[in-house]
Amino acid sequence: MTHKTDMNIFAQLESEVRSYCRSFPTVFTKAKGSKMWDEDGKEYIDFFSGAGALNYGHNDPIMKENLVDYIMNDGITHSLDMGTTEKATFLKEFKETILKPRDLNYKVMFPGPTGTNTVESALKLARKVTGRTDVISFTNGFHGMTIGALSVTGNSFKRKGAGIPLTHTVTMPYDNFVSDELDTLEYLERFLEDGGSGVAIPAAIILETVQGEGGINAARYEWLKKVEEICRRWDILLIVDDVQAGIGRTGSFFSFEKAGIKPDIVCLSKSISGYGLPLALTLIKPEYDIWEPGEHNGTFRGNNHAFVTATAALTYWKDDQFEKKITKQSERLYSFLEDLVASYPELEGQVRGRGFMVGVCSAKEGLSEKIAAQAFERGLIMETAGPKDEVFKLFPALTISDEELEKGLQMIKESVEATVNPKELVTNG
Amino acid sequence: MTHKTDMNIFAQLESEVRSYCRSFPTVFTKAKGSKMWDEDGKEYIDFFSGAGALNYGHNDPIMKENLVDYIMNDGITHSLDMGTTEKATFLKEFKETILKPRDLNYKVMFPGPTGTNTVESALKLARKVTGRTDVISFTNGFHGMTIGALSVTGNSFKRKGAGIPLTHTVTMPYDNFVSDELDTLEYLERFLEDGGSGVAIPAAIILETVQGEGGINAARYEWLKKVEEICRRWDILLIVDDVQAGIGRTGSFFSFEKAGIKPDIVCLSKSISGYGLPLALTLIKPEYDIWEPGEHNGTFRGNNHAFVTATAALTYWKDDQFEKKITKQSERLYSFLEDLVASYPELEGQVRGRGFMVGVCSAKEGLSEKIAAQAFERGLIMETAGPKDEVFKLFPALTISDEELEKGLQMIKESVEATVNPKELVTNG
Amino acid sequence: MTHKTDMNIFAQLESEVRSYCRSFPTVFTKAKGSKMWDEDGKEYIDFFSGAGALNYGHNDPIMKENLVDYIMNDGITHSLDMGTTEKATFLKEFKETILKPRDLNYKVMFPGPTGTNTVESALKLARKVTGRTDVISFTNGFHGMTIGALSVTGNSFKRKGAGIPLTHTVTMPYDNFVSDELDTLEYLERFLEDGGSGVAIPAAIILETVQGEGGINAARYEWLKKVEEICRRWDILLIVDDVQAGIGRTGSFFSFEKAGIKPDIVCLSKSISGYGLPLALTLIKPEYDIWEPGEHNGTFRGNNHAFVTATAALTYWKDDQFEKKITKQSERLYSFLEDLVASYPELEGQVRGRGFMVGVCSAKEGLSEKIAAQAFERGLIMETAGPKDEVFKLFPALTISDEELEKGLQMIKESVEATVNPKELVTNG
Amino acid sequence: MTHKTDMNIFAQLESEVRSYCRSFPTVFTKAKGSKMWDEDGKEYIDFFSGAGALNYGHNDPIMKENLVDYIMNDGITHSLDMGTTEKATFLKEFKETILKPRDLNYKVMFPGPTGTNTVESALKLARKVTGRTDVISFTNGFHGMTIGALSVTGNSFKRKGAGIPLTHTVTMPYDNFVSDELDTLEYLERFLEDGGSGVAIPAAIILETVQGEGGINAARYEWLKKVEEICRRWDILLIVDDVQAGIGRTGSFFSFEKAGIKPDIVCLSKSISGYGLPLALTLIKPEYDIWEPGEHNGTFRGNNHAFVTATAALTYWKDDQFEKKITKQSERLYSFLEDLVASYPELEGQVRGRGFMVGVCSAKEGLSEKIAAQAFERGLIMETAGPKDEVFKLFPALTISDEELEKGLQMIKESVEATVNPKELVTNG
Repeated sequence: MTHKTDMNIFAQLESEVRSYCRSFPTVFTKAKGSKMWDEDGKEYIDFFSGAGALNYGHNDPIMKENLVDYIMNDGITHSLDMGTTEKATFLKEFKETILKPRDLNYKVMFPGPTGTNTVESALKLARKVTGRTDVISFTNGFHGMTIGALSVTGNSFKRKGAGIPLTHTVTMPYDNFVSDELDTLEYLERFLEDGGSGVAIPAAIILETVQGEGGINAARYEWLKKVEEICRRWDILLIVDDVQAGIGRTGSFFSFEKAGIKPDIVCLSKSISGYGLPLALTLIKPEYDIWEPGEHNGTFRGNNHAFVTATAALTYWKDDQFEKKITKQSERLYSFLEDLVASYPELEGQVRGRGFMVGVCSAKEGLSEKIAAQAFERGLIMETAGPKDEVFKLFPALTISDEELEKGLQMIKESVEATVNPKELVTNG
Repeated sequence: MTHKTDMNIFAQLESEVRSYCRSFPTVFTKAKGSKMWDEDGKEYIDFFSGAGALNYGHNDPIMKENLVDYIMNDGITHSLDMGTTEKATFLKEFKETILKPRDLNYKVMFPGPTGTNTVESALKLARKVTGRTDVISFTNGFHGMTIGALSVTGNSFKRKGAGIPLTHTVTMPYDNFVSDELDTLEYLERFLEDGGSGVAIPAAIILETVQGEGGINAARYEWLKKVEEICRRWDILLIVDDVQAGIGRTGSFFSFEKAGIKPDIVCLSKSISGYGLPLALTLIKPEYDIWEPGEHNGTFRGNNHAFVTATAALTYWKDDQFEKKITKQSERLYSFLEDLVASYPELEGQVRGRGFMVGVCSAKEGLSEKIAAQAFERGLIMETAGPKDEVFKLFPALTISDEELEKGLQMIKESVEATVNPKELVTNG
Repeated sequence: MTHKTDMNIFAQLESEVRSYCRSFPTVFTKAKGSKMWDEDGKEYIDFFSGAGALNYGHNDPIMKENLVDYIMNDGITHSLDMGTTEKATFLKEFKETILKPRDLNYKVMFPGPTGTNTVESALKLARKVTGRTDVISFTNGFHGMTIGALSVTGNSFKRKGAGIPLTHTVTMPYDNFVSDELDTLEYLERFLEDGGSGVAIPAAIILETVQGEGGINAARYEWLKKVEEICRRWDILLIVDDVQAGIGRTGSFFSFEKAGIKPDIVCLSKSISGYGLPLALTLIKPEYDIWEPGEHNGTFRGNNHAFVTATAALTYWKDDQFEKKITKQSERLYSFLEDLVASYPELEGQVRGRGFMVGVCSAKEGLSEKIAAQAFERGLIMETAGPKDEVFKLFPALTISDEELEKGLQMIKESVEATVNPKELVTNG
Repeated sequence: MTHKTDMNIFAQLESEVRSYCRSFPTVFTKAKGSKMWDEDGKEYIDFFSGAGALNYGHNDPIMKENLVDYIMNDGITHSLDMGTTEKATFLKEFKETILKPRDLNYKVMFPGPTGTNTVESALKLARKVTGRTDVISFTNGFHGMTIGALSVTGNSFKRKGAGIPLTHTVTMPYDNFVSDELDTLEYLERFLEDGGSGVAIPAAIILETVQGEGGINAARYEWLKKVEEICRRWDILLIVDDVQAGIGRTGSFFSFEKAGIKPDIVCLSKSISGYGLPLALTLIKPEYDIWEPGEHNGTFRGNNHAFVTATAALTYWKDDQFEKKITKQSERLYSFLEDLVASYPELEGQVRGRGFMVGVCSAKEGLSEKIAAQAFERGLIMETAGPKDEVFKLFPALTISDEELEKGLQMIKESVEATVNPKELVTNG
């Protein structure tokens, strides 16, 4: 492409449903690590990471090399769930590098290559295993946009979009939903134990350990532990949707490791391919792998390009160096945000999150969106979350350098300053 | 990979849900055009085309070159629905090459990159546009495996897998469902016009013009035309699911062109990327593009690798040479199958389909599966379809050479012979 | 009451939902046999029979005497499902007089005392017995107004009133729904036998042998017989809703006797108490009586006043005199209506029904309602039926005298004449 | 009936669903005021009152006289919703005696004559008025057994009986459900106000002020007041199901009077006819009476016998004498039960309820049922309630004499003694 794209092309040809191109109104053309460039050559620091699908940054050189080699050699591209060399390699490496060292034992299912498809497969299987129909999900949970996954998603705007009633689910209060004092699980258990509660024993409880779309709400480890205990007591399957919080985002490969729990089913997608290529996995405890062949499927479930990069991505987890790096930088993220909130009381801000999945919730309506817009102008890609977009959300690549990180944080600080004290902006401008 | 994969790896590590690796028990490693090779170096002719996702064959050289260039230059890989150079290029080319010459006017939506996701988006939108909840689908229709799409899918095994009741849909008889004489649409209209019929006016009617999974059932053009008329009369949206039948499979880019109809919404996926990369499009008449930003979405909706190859694939449609080639070879396919059915009355066979989407339905239970298994042994990849797998299904790449085509057909003939007259097999063996 | 009621009282104090007082705008105060009187002393012939709840006419003298005796002696009035002398008496008499002579063996359940409640109990039980969820009902079927019964009711106005989607039911075409030639059951069976039809094997098929509210549609005996065969073949429970067509209305105690079928569950209400008192019965084949105690119930299920009159009503069935009377007069009804339709081609009329459940369907919109209104002015109570009120419906008491019958028929003739040739009316008036 | 009924008749002829005849295994034949007699001439004190349908006792002499007069004069028995003298009289008297003095303004709807039918009508109307689908109900609420009413009923055994999923309802915790400290309405409001809660703003909130079947749980007045405020704030209709708690049972005609609230819809049945005859009323604020004629109906909605007795019953409410009597005796009930629980710590009992709707909840599984069985043997009719039948429930007629009341209480005391100290029983026996 030698000439510049007319930005109107999207308004003319693409559906009104498009959204990110409205928050980030430019045409991107190139990316590397934590940097992106648009057609004007403007450089951006990426604190968005493709909504969590680019935890290893853009176009990682090893993955890239392996992928190009594979393509050049006419490796199989698309194969549904036939046997291929690349799928076998990935399965073996995933077992050795990820599951075994964590003492986890799961069969791997490849649903259609998106987060919502793995959630749909998990719900189907839990219903099949238990013979029950209902599923308990949590307030502000987000699990996808197809009808099955949307039924366990809390957001009222998204639910309304279904156009039909979303049924067979019960929403329970997530950790800290009502207040800090209230133990929301005491409440949940009363419903399970009382035969007149109107709530049937469910097939499964599905949750994110840290809610992304819902506003960067991190459940306490003891709360997660107690959910697992409730599942065991009532013979309910525990599904952890690790699509966004998994693959290192909270500091460990799986987000639930430090809580010491072992979910019955785990949903993975987004960063599992490493390179931003579509792929999704549903991990299933072997005793629950009672699918009939083809009982759930999807055309693109065998995305060999994604297997190539996903296998390469696993090398990050061969030792604990990567986790240590995340932990260290994560502390910096936290201290920065705590300082920010303290320095700008006008934010009415609260720091939230865990690992590289953090944000600030501002009690002032609309403020977080303004800050994110300011950041974009300064060259930082950052989005908002929560039912009212009340949280600005820091999602750097896990591979980010200290220098890039600081540059991004500086831009956030400036954006907050410019938003909170807009008069100075005018003076400076 | 220098050493051979142990086939057991899939049974050990992959979920029981895997299916194609059971019909085709080998490990594929390389592919080109209409040929595939497994790790033993055995060559196969591909009459399966990745279940319709590889209409242009494997690893088309132009697409390959463009894709590798793009990757080597660190083009953006993953971008959700941000503006990117590649998306803009694809949108423009799709408009110029496909829509304009066919006098079609659609806005383009990118849902999650799978067939079921585009169907889910179409159903949501039709419900939003009309404010109604129900959708009419047809017997033996297949539209996907997530709950919304599964609700309009006919197959009872797949429906049961939902684990919950599938609601807000009414199944009507597809063309020729009851008998050749009965006009199934007269029946459908009685339900719409009688206020006591128990069937509400639906938001949409969704259909495939040729049913793939359902058994290669081709609806007559006049039947399709009449469905469109009924939609207009009752103010119902017409959704054509062209995921499998589209992109040239039946002889024209869209499968509905020759029927002379203009659906309100069109679902595309599978071969739209050309190279087997995950991508899906929902085409929407501009007057119905009333989405709110982000009202339906999916992480991998901006798959730029797929945009690169999809743009390259559009060159096949610059003039009418490609369509002519399909038409010509399609006649050969038909005459071959008609001869086959006539030569082997033991098949109790019926030729079905349109264009490069054809098959033989055998009234003898289990026979088609045996023929497909025989074909695999001989080096031909071919699958079965229909509620009882009663149809063996010929899905060659549209780019196949006459020589490869004849080779494949020859193997089918031998497979039928070996299945129908097994004694000779023993003699020959 | 010595002074006259102000008719406005109903508009002022009663809900807008009231309906019959709009068609019959007067205040009734007394009734006997086939006659009713309003507060002005005007006498009416009753061809309505309380919508089928007064098959024995108003205030039958024997029933009345027994009821008054019972009340005077302080017999138990209300007892839920405790044991009472009157319930025992009724159960024994019903067994001896009705079930035994017809070679039927049913356990008797007393749900809440309305038609919709017996239907709800039947659907619950069929689902429990089979473990399936769906129920097949027919176009223009009417089974009640509570959500379960409404789900199997065809009328779109009534369905819409639910305010929520009505699910777990599939509507199939009733006999003659599409055209006289089409065998609607061939169609139904295709759906059951084809695994891709989208229609699951249901728990039950529910039907009326003659549809009352739906427009006096009488199914042919061979059609009913074939439905029973289909139920047996697929292990589906057959529920006959005999709430309106039962208790002699079509000429025999049960409406299905002449079809030679034995439903698995029978719903009775309306005329079962004989005197117009609320009562409902669900008859259940003993092998399907697998209820847990109290699994379905209702406060007024033990209405002893109704047991007293219901027992008395059974005396009508001790021999075949009553049936013979109905048959004889029914022939008169038919010949009268056939003559009427022939004499008044302007009616564009079609005679429908069976026994004492007959009517004329007029193809002229609004005409039947006008005729019924004319009849009311002349002193005849008669209502309309069908999705567009296109049928005027003759429902005399089974006990009506020949003289009263002729008087009523004469008024219908005059009403037709006055409606079809309104100018003469003016001349005569 | 001169000879005795064989008790086996019910097991032989009546469905397994029968329940009260199992708890009270005898054949009742006569009743008067608070006394019942069986065929052996044994006399019982009635602390059950027909599950709340006999608040004025059995066979009240004035109602009886009016009813017999009406029948003897051939008054209309059954009239659906035609205008009748008796309906007009009742409507006027109800307006004057009940609504006006309480400053309430409601239109009166007559659904089918059972509690579940009035609830179904209320839910339909609330959905129509608001255009919303969901309804919030409370833990341990009981509203009926037809699918619509069952959907808002908490009991898991009864819900499971539906055989299909019960949808469009959300169960919230009733007052004191989780613990005494927790404000369950704070919790409810969080769900309404948070756009990510997964709970949509409902059409209505439905509740009983004192839960009968659910275990005699009385909500505090301030809790009820707060529910009304929440309804006003969010524009939600408030439905009070006063089927069991209404008509004087808690001390005032409507159970909600002392809470100072004005529900939008009130459901009445059970004791509204006064004599135990089937009747139900749905009271609707005039601005919400937007029904179309016949949009909800039921054959027996015009039960004139019930109108006769219901009008007579209203004389109890002409002045405040009746309420004063109830209040006085209610104090006696409470002090008796408090003493009982104190005297028998083995009961692990808790006194519950309000007015003449009281009981003791025993923490010892099965104990309450044993006490009720002992009471029956001694000649007292008393039932149990709660999800595990953990409450024995005192429901005397509101018209009971002090002498009868004391006799009943004495039998309860003896029954508790005999159950808690069974050895003495043996000694005495």
